[in-house]
Amino acid sequence: MSDTSTDYRPMWQNLGLDLEAHDALLGAIPVMYSQACLSQTNRPEGMSYFDFVMSEIHGLRIKELVDHKAAGGSVVGTFCLYVPEELIRAVGGQGVGLCAGAEWAYGEVERLLPQNTCALIKSAMGFKLGKVCPYGEVADLIVGETTCDGKKKMYELLAEMAPVYVMELPQMKRAKDAALWRSEIDRLVEKLEAATNRSLTAESLRAAIVEVNDKRRALQRLNATRKADPVPISGKDALLAVQVAFYDDVPRFTTMVNSIAEELEARVAAGKGAAPAAAPRILVTGTPMSIPNWKLHDVIEKAGGVVVMEEMCTGSRYYSRLVDETVTDLPGMLDAIAEKYLDINCACFTPNSARMDNIIALAKEYKADGIIQCNLQFCAPYQIEATLVSRAAQEAGIPMLRIDTDYSAGDMGQLTTRVEAFLEMIS
Amino acid sequence: MSDTSTDYRPMWQNLGLDLEAHDALLGAIPVMYSQACLSQTNRPEGMSYFDFVMSEIHGLRIKELVDHKAAGGSVVGTFCLYVPEELIRAVGGQGVGLCAGAEWAYGEVERLLPQNTCALIKSAMGFKLGKVCPYGEVADLIVGETTCDGKKKMYELLAEMAPVYVMELPQMKRAKDAALWRSEIDRLVEKLEAATNRSLTAESLRAAIVEVNDKRRALQRLNATRKADPVPISGKDALLAVQVAFYDDVPRFTTMVNSIAEELEARVAAGKGAAPAAAPRILVTGTPMSIPNWKLHDVIEKAGGVVVMEEMCTGSRYYSRLVDETVTDLPGMLDAIAEKYLDINCACFTPNSARMDNIIALAKEYKADGIIQCNLQFCAPYQIEATLVSRAAQEAGIPMLRIDTDYSAGDMGQLTTRVEAFLEMIS
Repeated sequence: MSDTSTDYRPMWQNLGLDLEAHDALLGAIPVMYSQACLSQTNRPEGMSYFDFVMSEIHGLRIKELVDHKAAGGSVVGTFCLYVPEELIRAVGGQGVGLCAGAEWAYGEVERLLPQNTCALIKSAMGFKLGKVCPYGEVADLIVGETTCDGKKKMYELLAEMAPVYVMELPQMKRAKDAALWRSEIDRLVEKLEAATNRSLTAESLRAAIVEVNDKRRALQRLNATRKADPVPISGKDALLAVQVAFYDDVPRFTTMVNSIAEELEARVAAGKGAAPAAAPRILVTGTPMSIPNWKLHDVIEKAGGVVVMEEMCTGSRYYSRLVDETVTDLPGMLDAIAEKYLDINCACFTPNSARMDNIIALAKEYKADGIIQCNLQFCAPYQIEATLVSRAAQEAGIPMLRIDTDYSAGDMGQLTTRVEAFLEMIS
Repeated sequence: MSDTSTDYRPMWQNLGLDLEAHDALLGAIPVMYSQACLSQTNRPEGMSYFDFVMSEIHGLRIKELVDHKAAGGSVVGTFCLYVPEELIRAVGGQGVGLCAGAEWAYGEVERLLPQNTCALIKSAMGFKLGKVCPYGEVADLIVGETTCDGKKKMYELLAEMAPVYVMELPQMKRAKDAALWRSEIDRLVEKLEAATNRSLTAESLRAAIVEVNDKRRALQRLNATRKADPVPISGKDALLAVQVAFYDDVPRFTTMVNSIAEELEARVAAGKGAAPAAAPRILVTGTPMSIPNWKLHDVIEKAGGVVVMEEMCTGSRYYSRLVDETVTDLPGMLDAIAEKYLDINCACFTPNSARMDNIIALAKEYKADGIIQCNLQFCAPYQIEATLVSRAAQEAGIPMLRIDTDYSAGDMGQLTTRVEAFLEMIS
């Protein structure tokens, strides 16, 4: 790990960032991080790694990516779980998640996108237009997907500013949809090979599958400890681990998360919690929460609850399933990748009933006292599916609170009141 | 045509309508129709047919559909251009469009759907929940499609209240997407055959293709007269013809529209206009306008402009292309149907650049002085694509006004002001 006093400004300038705006952003994130995360007591010691990662969010990691490119590697940006990181790594690339979790340059954004676009898409576009995201700028290629109307159409505009390639995700999960998706995996391989001038081989893919599986296994191990009562890690810290998984160096991340998991296992054995045993245990489900969006977790945990699981793309949907490692031939491995990724329970599918089953199963497994369903305003797939999630919770007899929000702080007061009332009800 | 004083209340009651609420709706539509359409001067005489149709909107036509079912036929409801009417007719069915154009039972709707859902979807759901739409109730089957997030997820909820079947429309138009779509055509045929207990044959499909093509040819003929200056028919009346095309008896509609077209051709020859030659000519593009949504056309034409073309699903997208009639074998006809329907320029596709080209071509062909782009609030595909439409208009040097609205009358004043200013600018 490098000296944190390194001057990264020449690097940011080379990447084309707006240094003044970027300074403002980099000034704001530590304040948010400090208020949401560093203010916690009883944190696992291993979280100091994430404190470091956050302090270097646009510094060391970007330098590593720049160095990686200088050494002949490539960087591929993605917005969604459906783009297989294994394929990117198998051609010598590093994958970085580009979704952003803060309001930025919305004035400029709303000249291109309607005001009533979900915060995740507006934020991502705002980071691009405002020239404050080095991850987007360092990327050689951005791979999008047709998950939702908003992103699907946003990519058409983004393609005018960056090299964008879009995968077609089907909208159902029948055999013929799986076949279409499988062919999109082949098409992405071709694109990545052409863009990086590297060939994907059985060996390189095999190594990438194991590496990314190891990352997911580490997250599974960390998150399994949250079944314990008292829970050994706060929801905010567990969320942070998944958020960082989207852009950190993979082997290092895996090592550090396994180390935290070991500490958490010891905490569980010792009956030591990050929150009191009496704290109401909450499962959060809904749309993803990208850095620095810790809003809901912060409200829940400051109100005395503790989040024990996230059924979200920045949560269990990211790490709960591995790619089959028993297959070793190239087409078979690509089949296994296609299958694993199509299995994700996104509300963009119709029907998506497996998600409802999974939410209830997770709530039981993690002994949740209640479910908080939190979806971004203007996200039609999740906001409409919310009706079915509410019904599933009701049928399972699990109390549920529904929240529709965005990245602004404007509703923090109202959110706090509602969450406090909910926690009181289920205590 | 029947005696308009027939008492349809027993029929509506049998269909399960809420008679009191339905009375309120049926009381409102004639007022809206009168203010928007009957108040026009210089209308073609043939429009008296549509006046009759409107006066019987839930009466005679519903009785015909009930009689058709009593005689062993079926009725299939649809929400979207992509569901081939030819297939429905080829198994002895009659197709009816179910999209609705007025705010209804929004209180109940918003218990199921988010408030920020587009008016078309909320209205359709409101007509169902409020039990005021006999077309939906008389339908044996409702065929949806995965065009947009909102409808795709809404169908999951509607399926709890009605027999719903969903076709998967792909999101791109490559060969493999066409193949998926072609297989969805086969799957719909199977579903329709099973639902109606009738077999689709080469003969029945051939007849249906010609019949529906004839309907589209009649609309093409009517709309071709709008290229003339002065324009022989108002935009409101031309829009009404397409709106009615979605549910009227096909051969009768075709005969009546051809008769109006003949009258319009005579008007053109005589230089007789529905609006003065000096009226600014407007092409309207955007999201569909279902009955009784005549809001924008009414504003434009009362402000002194005249709408000469609609690049909309209730417009050119509906009638501009025919199914190839030269193919006569069954698989070939199904290919031709798949191909014709996938060719529609909906913003749900990425990319959808053919739409931009078509808008500019239509604007030139119809000698439009300006384009008014009108999209429903919360329709992400069209609202985001609007940026590309605006740019295409600018590059072609055609003035454009962009409107984002819903079905409420609340913005009529503001709309009028903006449209008046636009018309003044382009006059």
